[in-house]
Amino acid sequence: MLSKKIDIRVYYEDTDSGGIVYYANYFKFTERCRTELLRDFGLNQTDIFNKHNIKFIVHSVSMEYINPSYLDDMLTVETSISFTKKASIEFDQKIYKILGNNKIDIIKSKCKIVSIDSNLKIKAMPSDILKKFLEVK
Amino acid sequence: MLSKKIDIRVYYEDTDSGGIVYYANYFKFTERCRTELLRDFGLNQTDIFNKHNIKFIVHSVSMEYINPSYLDDMLTVETSISFTKKASIEFDQKIYKILGNNKIDIIKSKCKIVSIDSNLKIKAMPSDILKKFLEVK
Amino acid sequence: MLSKKIDIRVYYEDTDSGGIVYYANYFKFTERCRTELLRDFGLNQTDIFNKHNIKFIVHSVSMEYINPSYLDDMLTVETSISFTKKASIEFDQKIYKILGNNKIDIIKSKCKIVSIDSNLKIKAMPSDILKKFLEVK
Amino acid sequence: MLSKKIDIRVYYEDTDSGGIVYYANYFKFTERCRTELLRDFGLNQTDIFNKHNIKFIVHSVSMEYINPSYLDDMLTVETSISFTKKASIEFDQKIYKILGNNKIDIIKSKCKIVSIDSNLKIKAMPSDILKKFLEVK
Repeated sequence: MLSKKIDIRVYYEDTDSGGIVYYANYFKFTERCRTELLRDFGLNQTDIFNKHNIKFIVHSVSMEYINPSYLDDMLTVETSISFTKKASIEFDQKIYKILGNNKIDIIKSKCKIVSIDSNLKIKAMPSDILKKFLEVK
Repeated sequence: MLSKKIDIRVYYEDTDSGGIVYYANYFKFTERCRTELLRDFGLNQTDIFNKHNIKFIVHSVSMEYINPSYLDDMLTVETSISFTKKASIEFDQKIYKILGNNKIDIIKSKCKIVSIDSNLKIKAMPSDILKKFLEVK
Repeated sequence: MLSKKIDIRVYYEDTDSGGIVYYANYFKFTERCRTELLRDFGLNQTDIFNKHNIKFIVHSVSMEYINPSYLDDMLTVETSISFTKKASIEFDQKIYKILGNNKIDIIKSKCKIVSIDSNLKIKAMPSDILKKFLEVK
Repeated sequence: MLSKKIDIRVYYEDTDSGGIVYYANYFKFTERCRTELLRDFGLNQTDIFNKHNIKFIVHSVSMEYINPSYLDDMLTVETSISFTKKASIEFDQKIYKILGNNKIDIIKSKCKIVSIDSNLKIKAMPSDILKKFLEVK
């Protein structure tokens, strides 16, 4: 399964004066996890660009905020790939924290990225990369 | 009409090494415009909290990325309220830039906020605030 | 005099759960003002790079935190150039807010930037740019 | 010795369109390491505030930028306490990366924090906390 789990500590930089993690910052956390999933898969984004002249950019996102999180919280981000097409990948993501025996859901999110060339035109991923994705599914 | 338009200059802080504005940062831009819409409407968030013990938090968002934007771009954020309920407000938002005679769409976004009390329970907005919203529509 | 003053509204994105503006974010505010000073002066950073293959990078900074600032504050950033050399510019910066008849100092800061080429080597600014600086002083 | 070392991966969120880590973001990295040093030392900032009504705020910082760092870099932040007074702590910090057999210095930084009460007045740290610091030195 193409999935990845990372732990993220909440620091002051992540919070706002409402006393909770600032809503836009969860998109930083989800991106860290997508990056690590791709890295596990051998897809270092700097290398892909240098070798294949391909960059992944975000096409669309959505997020539901379920419970707030706070300074010093230890969060877990979970990411799985829901589908892969020639020039796009869609991720299902969630963030939660463990408090005693409880798992507290923080957010749920979807993110679709597309591969583009250096002229910002959508361009299919190289076949060896695509094949990797299809083998795993 | 409950709507607001603000201009935002893109600085280095907003961009990433892909050479474009970082995807999560558009959520900062849309929030600035929502805040100014509410401020125009007499809803300073610090005051609301002090007077009514109510805070607005983000319930859900979605965003489509249409075209990238770049360092030094002057962007326009447009926000309108698509509906208001007792304890929630939904915003339609878009960001574009003007290049010569062309209007280039950057993103489209939706955002729903809910009013909560200091225990994080959903709580209806005070009736005078709600009435204001309904009068304008 | 080579100086610039801009106003900056404090939004949620700028604050942290201590209830005040996050210390690192003042460096975003000071950079916005340096950028506008250079822009007034005809130095759009994107253009400079394209024309002269020169980028300005930050060499060193220091900041003293005098008073905190808060959500919804309207801050003023003031920047002046304390000296210019062939490949470097030093800025004196401060941020304050006006509350009634009082001017409340928020931070004081210094920042030195150096001009580098695309190989990250220090490179003197083009003579016409330097001349501009010297004329104004 | 009161010191701490943490590793930090550079993600898109940390970089800017200059292709390098944005200068203000190093202050996020140094703060993460200061926080972990204090946590190792039993000083969880949320707890301190709840128990002792004391918060640490940043009094002053300085930073020298030695070499740039890039997307996907694995950085090491090192922090040591250079001195402790009744109401202040000063940190020496540096960030570097290892490339093959080379250690590449990225930044050097100093940071002084002071302990304040909820009225923002400087207040000495509780004696048991201070004693801990003095025992270790």
